[in-house]
Amino acid sequence: MIAPAPSGPATLADFEQAATQEHLVPLWTVRRRLAGAEPYLWRWPHVRQRILQAADLVPLGGQGAERRVLLMLNPGLPADRTATTETLLASVQLIHGREMAPSHRHTAAALRFVMEGQGACTVVNGQPVSMDVGDLVLTPGWCWHGHFSEHEEPMIWMDGLDAPLLRSLAAMMGEEFPTPDRKQPLTAARDDSLELYGAGVLQPIDRPAGQLNSPLLSYPWQQTEDRLNRLAERDGSPFDGLALQYTNPTTGGPVLPTIDCWIQMLRRGEHTQAHRHTGGVIYNVARGAGWSVINGQRFDWSAGDVFCVPGRAWHEHANASAFEPAILFSINDSPVLRPLGLYREEPYQDNGGRQAVTSTFV
Amino acid sequence: MIAPAPSGPATLADFEQAATQEHLVPLWTVRRRLAGAEPYLWRWPHVRQRILQAADLVPLGGQGAERRVLLMLNPGLPADRTATTETLLASVQLIHGREMAPSHRHTAAALRFVMEGQGACTVVNGQPVSMDVGDLVLTPGWCWHGHFSEHEEPMIWMDGLDAPLLRSLAAMMGEEFPTPDRKQPLTAARDDSLELYGAGVLQPIDRPAGQLNSPLLSYPWQQTEDRLNRLAERDGSPFDGLALQYTNPTTGGPVLPTIDCWIQMLRRGEHTQAHRHTGGVIYNVARGAGWSVINGQRFDWSAGDVFCVPGRAWHEHANASAFEPAILFSINDSPVLRPLGLYREEPYQDNGGRQAVTSTFV
Amino acid sequence: MIAPAPSGPATLADFEQAATQEHLVPLWTVRRRLAGAEPYLWRWPHVRQRILQAADLVPLGGQGAERRVLLMLNPGLPADRTATTETLLASVQLIHGREMAPSHRHTAAALRFVMEGQGACTVVNGQPVSMDVGDLVLTPGWCWHGHFSEHEEPMIWMDGLDAPLLRSLAAMMGEEFPTPDRKQPLTAARDDSLELYGAGVLQPIDRPAGQLNSPLLSYPWQQTEDRLNRLAERDGSPFDGLALQYTNPTTGGPVLPTIDCWIQMLRRGEHTQAHRHTGGVIYNVARGAGWSVINGQRFDWSAGDVFCVPGRAWHEHANASAFEPAILFSINDSPVLRPLGLYREEPYQDNGGRQAVTSTFV
Amino acid sequence: MIAPAPSGPATLADFEQAATQEHLVPLWTVRRRLAGAEPYLWRWPHVRQRILQAADLVPLGGQGAERRVLLMLNPGLPADRTATTETLLASVQLIHGREMAPSHRHTAAALRFVMEGQGACTVVNGQPVSMDVGDLVLTPGWCWHGHFSEHEEPMIWMDGLDAPLLRSLAAMMGEEFPTPDRKQPLTAARDDSLELYGAGVLQPIDRPAGQLNSPLLSYPWQQTEDRLNRLAERDGSPFDGLALQYTNPTTGGPVLPTIDCWIQMLRRGEHTQAHRHTGGVIYNVARGAGWSVINGQRFDWSAGDVFCVPGRAWHEHANASAFEPAILFSINDSPVLRPLGLYREEPYQDNGGRQAVTSTFV
Repeated sequence: MIAPAPSGPATLADFEQAATQEHLVPLWTVRRRLAGAEPYLWRWPHVRQRILQAADLVPLGGQGAERRVLLMLNPGLPADRTATTETLLASVQLIHGREMAPSHRHTAAALRFVMEGQGACTVVNGQPVSMDVGDLVLTPGWCWHGHFSEHEEPMIWMDGLDAPLLRSLAAMMGEEFPTPDRKQPLTAARDDSLELYGAGVLQPIDRPAGQLNSPLLSYPWQQTEDRLNRLAERDGSPFDGLALQYTNPTTGGPVLPTIDCWIQMLRRGEHTQAHRHTGGVIYNVARGAGWSVINGQRFDWSAGDVFCVPGRAWHEHANASAFEPAILFSINDSPVLRPLGLYREEPYQDNGGRQAVTSTFV
Repeated sequence: MIAPAPSGPATLADFEQAATQEHLVPLWTVRRRLAGAEPYLWRWPHVRQRILQAADLVPLGGQGAERRVLLMLNPGLPADRTATTETLLASVQLIHGREMAPSHRHTAAALRFVMEGQGACTVVNGQPVSMDVGDLVLTPGWCWHGHFSEHEEPMIWMDGLDAPLLRSLAAMMGEEFPTPDRKQPLTAARDDSLELYGAGVLQPIDRPAGQLNSPLLSYPWQQTEDRLNRLAERDGSPFDGLALQYTNPTTGGPVLPTIDCWIQMLRRGEHTQAHRHTGGVIYNVARGAGWSVINGQRFDWSAGDVFCVPGRAWHEHANASAFEPAILFSINDSPVLRPLGLYREEPYQDNGGRQAVTSTFV
Repeated sequence: MIAPAPSGPATLADFEQAATQEHLVPLWTVRRRLAGAEPYLWRWPHVRQRILQAADLVPLGGQGAERRVLLMLNPGLPADRTATTETLLASVQLIHGREMAPSHRHTAAALRFVMEGQGACTVVNGQPVSMDVGDLVLTPGWCWHGHFSEHEEPMIWMDGLDAPLLRSLAAMMGEEFPTPDRKQPLTAARDDSLELYGAGVLQPIDRPAGQLNSPLLSYPWQQTEDRLNRLAERDGSPFDGLALQYTNPTTGGPVLPTIDCWIQMLRRGEHTQAHRHTGGVIYNVARGAGWSVINGQRFDWSAGDVFCVPGRAWHEHANASAFEPAILFSINDSPVLRPLGLYREEPYQDNGGRQAVTSTFV
Repeated sequence: MIAPAPSGPATLADFEQAATQEHLVPLWTVRRRLAGAEPYLWRWPHVRQRILQAADLVPLGGQGAERRVLLMLNPGLPADRTATTETLLASVQLIHGREMAPSHRHTAAALRFVMEGQGACTVVNGQPVSMDVGDLVLTPGWCWHGHFSEHEEPMIWMDGLDAPLLRSLAAMMGEEFPTPDRKQPLTAARDDSLELYGAGVLQPIDRPAGQLNSPLLSYPWQQTEDRLNRLAERDGSPFDGLALQYTNPTTGGPVLPTIDCWIQMLRRGEHTQAHRHTGGVIYNVARGAGWSVINGQRFDWSAGDVFCVPGRAWHEHANASAFEPAILFSINDSPVLRPLGLYREEPYQDNGGRQAVTSTFV
């Protein structure tokens, strides 16, 4: 039989303090955590200026920085989370002409969406992958990767990583490429994965099947834009306009096990309906200008801006132009949520499916 | 306790006869079945002549034939199996200019590989799918399908079906389209699936995921040939040359749950090594001329010929030309065997990987 | 342009004959195959008498039979199919006291449901597996297996195999155990798989996950009967009474990739409703007496009888007793049909869900 | 061409400060986060005393606490993570005799491992589930659940939740049961899931297949202990002794999509070898006494103690008794890591597989 408690602290407050110090925290004293990712927008002219300043001030490699990167940290999350949404991290990176970023690898998966410049290249496990504006380039988890430039000009891109998720899972590990110059030997032909797997429905019979990570490492802008234009007259999604998923040719699913990548076109004058879902999203405005309404707050954006929609925030998108399409590249963590039964989606029912705007982000 | 047998037939022979008549067949009287699919080849000039004769003699639809089709039945299998390999059936079909083959559906999946002519169209669940020489067109199981011609000329194609497998599974069912004219109303834009899903790695976000049957119904020759040419200098497979799989964009796997479709190029002068595997294969020579050695027998082939390699037969392929590639389209049943743990493969070890030729098919 | 046909046979009949001889069979001459598995019943008193006669007449091993087995061949299928339903084969087997059936293996999967006697044992890949009346014992594909008796008495069981399916897939292969005496050395403890995996929900952490074949080789009658009795008051299925599936503990699914095994209890006086589905079923009456109505024909059965229901045949079951349960063991091929999208099921709508009986099987 | 940067902050330090304030944090200023879960141990006599004190001081329900729970928060993690390992949370809970904890549900999955007392019951979606010492009881995500006592005595158990993971995924949601008394109506028989699914290898044919969450809600101690005793002489794992996984009968895998539950026996005098793996583990000492060495630090434990091993920490276990077994219940997050390709394991190679002890936890 359970005995009565030995005499302890005289008051509840004393008890709570004592127990808490012993790492036995009374549940009823825990405040519901209010902190969480917020909607936020980073404007391109400003981000661009800052990364160009960093380009002047910070050398790369050797005694300099491992990467010349500015992290877009969500103001609603503790700084030590180093995150843009709960699970994803966006940053902007610049590499100078003729510069080289040393090779390393980490369990975190990464991708690049190229924003400006020319002539850079990412080396993934010995394979040089070309980078041009609008291209999506993958460096799946635990692949060796570095960057170099073959041109006079700098290049700027947005990085997307699942590092916050991996830290949440205590699964973040990494190492430097084990040669003094930290330069991978080039062991595959340039853009070999694009050549082999890039044309989609016809695939080599001897490829590995059902790979978690796409063996296709690069999705060039030209084919992306062609597809959008080709399907521009389709109905698309009421919440996302004409939206396409970049797919892993060995599974028909997301390109990375933790990150799903999308490209979506808001057609001339298109204004979508609002919905919400679990899982945060980071957007990069690839073309045009418009606005999104996130939990009643209006975020105006134009090309190069990056903004985030936290999980379960109501959101809708609008193209500001009646003449030109607007195009959004985005990344989300639904591949993690779905197999756990945690992905949920809900349309906004009131007001014809559109939110009332109660404030504007400045 | 088990009692001794009541007195029965005096001799073993009497017993065997009596039991057999009672559908209780003694195992030791059953001869190992020697019958099985044989390697065989149907020559195009002759097949073409026969189907043209049928075109003169047999009307289509109404009181005529449901389909103007000649079945390529394997001489090694009982006629009632109606099969080219144990699980697959190939046939040749002709539709006259301006003719219509009435719509029906069946649980068997079918595909067409177009051989000659122009202007025909397959309607699949209300969607018209264009047909040109070299195109692969799918009609997955239980989809309504019919054919019509919009041109003066006839068209000839090879059909591939899993009907023998479905009969083995007692799962063959079918029905006629339920209108007097048996003509499907056209409810989708022409080649709509090609438009939506044909470009491979970028796919609509609202497509169904992980479909058994490819939602993409058509794989045009032009893109097939482009891929082959583009990858022509690759190593490819030692047994199959440069071989590509037609894939289902929602899974990255076979286009049909029961049939895998391949296109393979034997480069100038290429002669592959021999191997064998479970699962039969039916080949259609799309381009060029050469020969295959199947269980030591040489089969010379040229464009339009159809030949089959039974499961577990040793086989190797050779291009007869030092100047032109040879291209083989083929279908196999490995998607059925693999998930059951029944797919096995073995390289030919002796003689440098090539069989001694002991006879020639004439 | 497709040229007119060269002059050929003058009449359609001549053409059809000529083409057929060339293995180019006109589709319109092919009669819909009427042959197919039929409902049939093998009565235990008679089957038992026959196998006891065989026990007197046929020696086992060496110069005798490999197995003392009588095959229950479906009268509706061609004899060369060697099948009870399109994909499954049932047979009855007897082993004398102190006898040994030599070891072999084959790609076909097999199972035993023990009917009478005691003291026999199946050796599966070196592991002796006990056999008692009502036990289900598995020998998955390509496992070495033989039988021996440790007792004076003979034992009789029903075998179930997927051999007809494997022949349909041209995937039937086999070999003898490679020692002169064809006796496997015993390398595992007796009933080791039962000890390790038999208790279901708690499983060793180092077991292989997601195995096609159950690593558990034996499902003893005692636990089977206990489960049935324990759940006897549950509603169960309207078509099958209280029906349980034997499961593979590594997947929660069927025990073999090609064969699903069931045990079902018809409670006192229970008479189920009729339904039909693709996939044939072979039943073994484990306890009691009753009848099934299959496509309007009544089949009366009692303990030890074996009967089959072909795919797509309407069927319902009734327990003849108001005092005792009737128990049916059965095997079906739904694990093959389901992943191919070929499993379909339909309840009988008319007449309160029960068929009119139009004849009786005698 | 990318223009030179407009003039900005004069020094790197100024730049870093300015950018950081703009939520554009220079990567090179981010210190590698040193914080992470630490090995820690909560001693049962003390935990028990504290929860008994809470029992005196804190009323349950209504104006009192929702649950009388003390959270075991890892001292190495920020308090706002509310976590025992990065993804899992353990706590101790007490319910008084005749008391009721109101019903609620949340997306987080939970389980209880009962430590002391008798007569309590968890209601899961209307089904009362009995609780006795040593039982494992599941409340999968989004199931309504409450607790009540039918006895005079209190009951104490350990809770395990995936709440830290769900907060990391921004997927934590919850709601109260929508009646004034927050008491679920009882709509299923007591321990119904145990009756239906608890016997493992024979499962109802009409159960749902492949469920993420186990439909079996309760794993009674008696069967757990029986299995351990039955398999006690087996080799087991070099790192974990005789270890069994609680399994979901519909998949053969973990009982919850995010939490794997184990029971393991260290046999008389057993001392395992060290290894490490990604994914943290929380242990509850169910029987006996012994110690674990975690990253060189010795943690002595006895029955009722709770301790955690963070991901990637070397660990080995020892039973202190030469006469009695020690039994550990544990939970880990490997079901989340494995499908993402993030589960890794490594044996300790030096020193015969055992760590040198450099300190002792007090």
